[in-house]
Amino acid sequence: MSIKKLPVFNDPIYGFISIESPLIFELLKHPYFQRLRRIAQMGLSSLVYPGARHSRFEHALGAVYLMQSVVDTLRRKGVTIDQNEKEALCVAILLHDIGHGPFSHAMENTLFVDVHHEELSLGFMYLLNDQFSGRLSLAIEVYKNQYKRPFMHQLIASQLDVDRLDYLKRDSFYTGATEGNINSQRLIAMLNVVDDQLVVEEKGLFSVEKFIMARRLMYWQVYLHKTGLGAELLLSKLLAYVRELLRKGETIACPKNLLFFLNSPQLDPKDPSVLHQFSQLDDTDIFMALKQWQQESDPILSSFSKRILNRQLLKVKLRDKEFTLEEIENKKNKLRNMGVQEEDLSMYVFSGTLSATAYSPEKDPIFMLTKSKKIIPFASFSSLFKTANLTLAEEKAYLCFANSI
Amino acid sequence: MSIKKLPVFNDPIYGFISIESPLIFELLKHPYFQRLRRIAQMGLSSLVYPGARHSRFEHALGAVYLMQSVVDTLRRKGVTIDQNEKEALCVAILLHDIGHGPFSHAMENTLFVDVHHEELSLGFMYLLNDQFSGRLSLAIEVYKNQYKRPFMHQLIASQLDVDRLDYLKRDSFYTGATEGNINSQRLIAMLNVVDDQLVVEEKGLFSVEKFIMARRLMYWQVYLHKTGLGAELLLSKLLAYVRELLRKGETIACPKNLLFFLNSPQLDPKDPSVLHQFSQLDDTDIFMALKQWQQESDPILSSFSKRILNRQLLKVKLRDKEFTLEEIENKKNKLRNMGVQEEDLSMYVFSGTLSATAYSPEKDPIFMLTKSKKIIPFASFSSLFKTANLTLAEEKAYLCFANSI
Amino acid sequence: MSIKKLPVFNDPIYGFISIESPLIFELLKHPYFQRLRRIAQMGLSSLVYPGARHSRFEHALGAVYLMQSVVDTLRRKGVTIDQNEKEALCVAILLHDIGHGPFSHAMENTLFVDVHHEELSLGFMYLLNDQFSGRLSLAIEVYKNQYKRPFMHQLIASQLDVDRLDYLKRDSFYTGATEGNINSQRLIAMLNVVDDQLVVEEKGLFSVEKFIMARRLMYWQVYLHKTGLGAELLLSKLLAYVRELLRKGETIACPKNLLFFLNSPQLDPKDPSVLHQFSQLDDTDIFMALKQWQQESDPILSSFSKRILNRQLLKVKLRDKEFTLEEIENKKNKLRNMGVQEEDLSMYVFSGTLSATAYSPEKDPIFMLTKSKKIIPFASFSSLFKTANLTLAEEKAYLCFANSI
Amino acid sequence: MSIKKLPVFNDPIYGFISIESPLIFELLKHPYFQRLRRIAQMGLSSLVYPGARHSRFEHALGAVYLMQSVVDTLRRKGVTIDQNEKEALCVAILLHDIGHGPFSHAMENTLFVDVHHEELSLGFMYLLNDQFSGRLSLAIEVYKNQYKRPFMHQLIASQLDVDRLDYLKRDSFYTGATEGNINSQRLIAMLNVVDDQLVVEEKGLFSVEKFIMARRLMYWQVYLHKTGLGAELLLSKLLAYVRELLRKGETIACPKNLLFFLNSPQLDPKDPSVLHQFSQLDDTDIFMALKQWQQESDPILSSFSKRILNRQLLKVKLRDKEFTLEEIENKKNKLRNMGVQEEDLSMYVFSGTLSATAYSPEKDPIFMLTKSKKIIPFASFSSLFKTANLTLAEEKAYLCFANSI
Repeated sequence: MSIKKLPVFNDPIYGFISIESPLIFELLKHPYFQRLRRIAQMGLSSLVYPGARHSRFEHALGAVYLMQSVVDTLRRKGVTIDQNEKEALCVAILLHDIGHGPFSHAMENTLFVDVHHEELSLGFMYLLNDQFSGRLSLAIEVYKNQYKRPFMHQLIASQLDVDRLDYLKRDSFYTGATEGNINSQRLIAMLNVVDDQLVVEEKGLFSVEKFIMARRLMYWQVYLHKTGLGAELLLSKLLAYVRELLRKGETIACPKNLLFFLNSPQLDPKDPSVLHQFSQLDDTDIFMALKQWQQESDPILSSFSKRILNRQLLKVKLRDKEFTLEEIENKKNKLRNMGVQEEDLSMYVFSGTLSATAYSPEKDPIFMLTKSKKIIPFASFSSLFKTANLTLAEEKAYLCFANSI
Repeated sequence: MSIKKLPVFNDPIYGFISIESPLIFELLKHPYFQRLRRIAQMGLSSLVYPGARHSRFEHALGAVYLMQSVVDTLRRKGVTIDQNEKEALCVAILLHDIGHGPFSHAMENTLFVDVHHEELSLGFMYLLNDQFSGRLSLAIEVYKNQYKRPFMHQLIASQLDVDRLDYLKRDSFYTGATEGNINSQRLIAMLNVVDDQLVVEEKGLFSVEKFIMARRLMYWQVYLHKTGLGAELLLSKLLAYVRELLRKGETIACPKNLLFFLNSPQLDPKDPSVLHQFSQLDDTDIFMALKQWQQESDPILSSFSKRILNRQLLKVKLRDKEFTLEEIENKKNKLRNMGVQEEDLSMYVFSGTLSATAYSPEKDPIFMLTKSKKIIPFASFSSLFKTANLTLAEEKAYLCFANSI
Repeated sequence: MSIKKLPVFNDPIYGFISIESPLIFELLKHPYFQRLRRIAQMGLSSLVYPGARHSRFEHALGAVYLMQSVVDTLRRKGVTIDQNEKEALCVAILLHDIGHGPFSHAMENTLFVDVHHEELSLGFMYLLNDQFSGRLSLAIEVYKNQYKRPFMHQLIASQLDVDRLDYLKRDSFYTGATEGNINSQRLIAMLNVVDDQLVVEEKGLFSVEKFIMARRLMYWQVYLHKTGLGAELLLSKLLAYVRELLRKGETIACPKNLLFFLNSPQLDPKDPSVLHQFSQLDDTDIFMALKQWQQESDPILSSFSKRILNRQLLKVKLRDKEFTLEEIENKKNKLRNMGVQEEDLSMYVFSGTLSATAYSPEKDPIFMLTKSKKIIPFASFSSLFKTANLTLAEEKAYLCFANSI
Repeated sequence: MSIKKLPVFNDPIYGFISIESPLIFELLKHPYFQRLRRIAQMGLSSLVYPGARHSRFEHALGAVYLMQSVVDTLRRKGVTIDQNEKEALCVAILLHDIGHGPFSHAMENTLFVDVHHEELSLGFMYLLNDQFSGRLSLAIEVYKNQYKRPFMHQLIASQLDVDRLDYLKRDSFYTGATEGNINSQRLIAMLNVVDDQLVVEEKGLFSVEKFIMARRLMYWQVYLHKTGLGAELLLSKLLAYVRELLRKGETIACPKNLLFFLNSPQLDPKDPSVLHQFSQLDDTDIFMALKQWQQESDPILSSFSKRILNRQLLKVKLRDKEFTLEEIENKKNKLRNMGVQEEDLSMYVFSGTLSATAYSPEKDPIFMLTKSKKIIPFASFSSLFKTANLTLAEEKAYLCFANSI
């Protein structure tokens, strides 16, 4: 009597996640991937949405689950996807975020300059491909959109990819922002493939509209929530501040792994030893640094570290119109009056703009498959989107400032 | 030792519903209201969404629950609402749909010609007000928008009323169309009252956008789902057909209550005896009639009754562009070839148009309360809605036709 | 370009239900099965749990969904189940309740005497097998437990069958009695088959304990809720009362289909023409009868019909100890004083006992598969159940009585 | 125009949590409390249930929400609770877990010897009471069960307290172990107070039974899940190992705050300076230590740190019967053969016992209020619990061992 068992993970959203491919299971166990357990999917958003402490690990696992389901659905509809292709899809979606650093997006451009996490993910895929004797080659081809069947890359990275199908649902679940909840199952049921191109069947029109609206809502209500945004900007500023102190030769207590990056402004994200160093970093290092810095003598360093740890954040205003120099100067004057030094003012008052695009009709459009079997870009098919400006980038200006020192 | 108990209802959506006012509890027990247990909230939609068998009774109860919660929230924000006003709000929302006939909207204009269910609801309120010694007078005043505080009527009937807050959530729950789920609790938390006018606080902007989008989606995906629509149109046609047979003097088995209405084309909805007759009607009478008619000798009557009972419905096409005479004639010709008589063709092939408006910026607009305490109509405040055409009526044409006889 | 589509049903619990086998889809469309749309799964329970209006149709569909999932799970674990066996399992579970009459269990033993709905289901399966040229033969063999692989019958009818996996979850969902919610998905993931015997893997122990506790709770809190129970007993009494009036030769308005059964005390449930008559009956006939009877001159008939329609039910007491003759006589005396005739007293006051067994260790026990691959009956494996008396029948006595006439 | 606003928190379980009392809001902002954001409610359970990363912060907030709801419910039932008492209840439940150290229960008895977290919570309450000018005095009285109204302490700490009402629901939500989900709202609706004693109304009987069963299930399926248990035991052993190295005078990289506790075996939990040191500790320190230790030269230290970080845990067996010396010796011999030194064996193989009691009928029993207004201990009222052994402690033996080094 032999009883087969599949590795199973508990997931509060999908119930059970069975991992069908042994390669996926091996990759899951690798320390590079286990590190994602210690990286918050939503950065510092848990300061606003306390439930939102979920990790990149869960998201990657959830995305594999949905990918398995997409492949099964497409096969039932007659789309041929062989086992190697299925595994490549699952590997690519499993690893698509492995290059994220501490607090996910919160610190992109802070540790590396001008390096997007996707470039780092690709770097890790190459490293793993070496360790796994080339078994990730097809996944990498798909990830880089060099494979002959475009729909496979579209499932990994497009405006209706499996990444979004998981993260919108997951982030909505953990934040409690139920307006962002999407019906991933229904969207998957509506997918199809024509000439190796991903399409959505006509009766999925409303679900796609809803999906894009949900994404827009999650951007403005959750991802760009002014308080969370202010916290993340503050953290970036603080790290830049430390980088500058270090450049000046000051000695600052700091976890070694983080110090390596703060000391080195221009690192090559393709260098395996740099990647390996990066793989040692996670949210722990940042929190530990803040805890150490709050006891440093530099008053900016200690006070701003405390602000983040104890959630005594800056005030943030968010609006359509940019803030005038006068408005900014007013805030600065108040802080000058409280005794803030000129060179420190940029920590206490700063402004900028944000932008989010719910749907771009030009780049990688979503295609609809009509009942009469025509293929039409979503934006020309949806009566809602034909005239709505939500296909344009929406911009907002922010102003962060301290009310006290 | 005396232990107070409030009447409590189980509700799968809100958990427990406690009824605070004894008057509400008395009204609930009245046969006019108990009748709503036998009227499906969503008409024949359960032919498409099998879970959608919920009744008007539940919806009315749920709306009272939300209304109690609205009043408690507004009071916590300092809005003065006395106990009489609270009770009036609850009575008005409890009874707002008491005038619905069998299958709710499905048969409006079929039993009474040109009489909207709201007129009938008002008629029942007058009858009940007599029986309850005038205790419904304030509720009626609010319902008719004759009370001095407009926000109270707005909570009963406006584009963001408690009716919608319950039915969108409830219909989404029972159909499984989760895209229509709205966060009633969050919307209620965002309500406020300024100068006796209902407003939504600025930070509720995205929730209102989401609410309107959800309503639009429920219209096109659920309420106007082509199959359900076809079934309801067919039922209306069948009742008109019977009315005509009766007018010609034919004898047809039919539940007595229904027969009364089918025999009388022009009844006065203000006449108490007519209202009382109407209060005897519910979904049972229609189903019973169909079961009897399927055994009648008239072939149209029996075959179309069977079609509805056994869900062998007409085909329905729904699209933006109207159907041409040629297209319609084509369908008719097919049926002529199958032997359908000329005078019966209109049962087998028919067409028309539908329209739904997600949000009307002119009539009863939703007002937003900005952080700087200005009051601005929603449509000029929302960047999404400023240019989107979802404030316009969307129209679709339908064509229903049989493929066989 | 050809795009395969599977028939899909919306279900508020499982999302989408795809029907994989064309035979199932054909059976679904048969009027015998469509009738289940008009039969409430939980009888008159919606008088207590207003949301519980769901139909046998949905339950049967949900059970097919779970069965498909069970087969897929077992196959992944290496259990061989061929396509014919899979279809037979799905057909058997689809039709296992097709013999239910109006209000499901509420009226068993009222229309037929001493005939269980399973006998009627089997009768319908034979009728359908004739119409479908013998394609149901294997399903019938499984249903009757005559097939060589016992686990297949166990999935249809045992103490851990797919029927229960669906109805506990479904009834919990619609009533809002969340305590009865079970994790069907987890239970299914724990199933296995050893020597053609259904077993539960050891790590599913707590889930089975929870499942049995949930069933016990649903019995006492929902299915045997005293108010719903009182309503159903009253309805049975009323039908018996009408039967007696008819026997005496009185003329009573009554839907024809129902009259047939009330006039005929001893019908043969194997007679096809009787079954066909039965297939014409649904909840509509009962409600219609009550609506007609409330206008009959017989005061018992009219007043008790009104009581059910308007939910003016009897008081019900439920307790461990039987009610004494004295207690019963006291209630009767009160009603005698109000003028109730001696021969009518049994409508106003009646008593009896109820019993429910959460788990029977003797009959069809659930078997556990230990990690060391032994097979052990659940009751000796579970430390909870080893000594708990919930393996015994629990009995309660009820007393129903009117407080007014 | 003045618009009152209450501080509101988003919670994925309850939706919105409004904080009514300003004192609560002030306490929430204190660094002692904000620290709970960085302490996982369920220790290392996220190694088994990846979603279970929620913090003590959320749990405390959720408990306040439920407490507010309990008070409102009791007041509606006529129980007098004045504003000071309400605030004291909310303060006491807010702070009941403030004394938890890193990973909550996982490390009790590791940092302090023989000091329970409740003692530390009380210590923090005293410190905060000083800082808040005695405004916590009544809360402390209630917490210590010295207030004249016993039901208030029972709501904080008893077998049916608000703590459990939140954590069972919350832990079930984040783990996905839906079997442990409880209906907190229903349980609260059933509470009452008689002679200042907390009671549950009779019709809540099944809900209490379900609640106790859910707790039992959560213990064995989640809290004492063998993998999570193994991880936590390993971590404790590792910290003891470091303590011993330090005692021997070795120098080990370690976060300063943690080092303080590892260097000091016997600290006085009443000493404010010790408490303040403790308030600097959170999960970050442990993760940081593990990350540093994995690079230490001591092979035990580095290899076991890696095991926890990368989830390469020991095997764990859990069973009713204790493990024999022979079984344990067998495991040790295998490791000896792999070259493990005698003095290190206790890190690779260890055993012990666990115990959990679902319900203790002796200590703080739950009291039921019968319909005839008698007060009866739950265990004699519930027919399920009368004979079930789930009122006894259940014990299990565990054996943890490495399969490789």
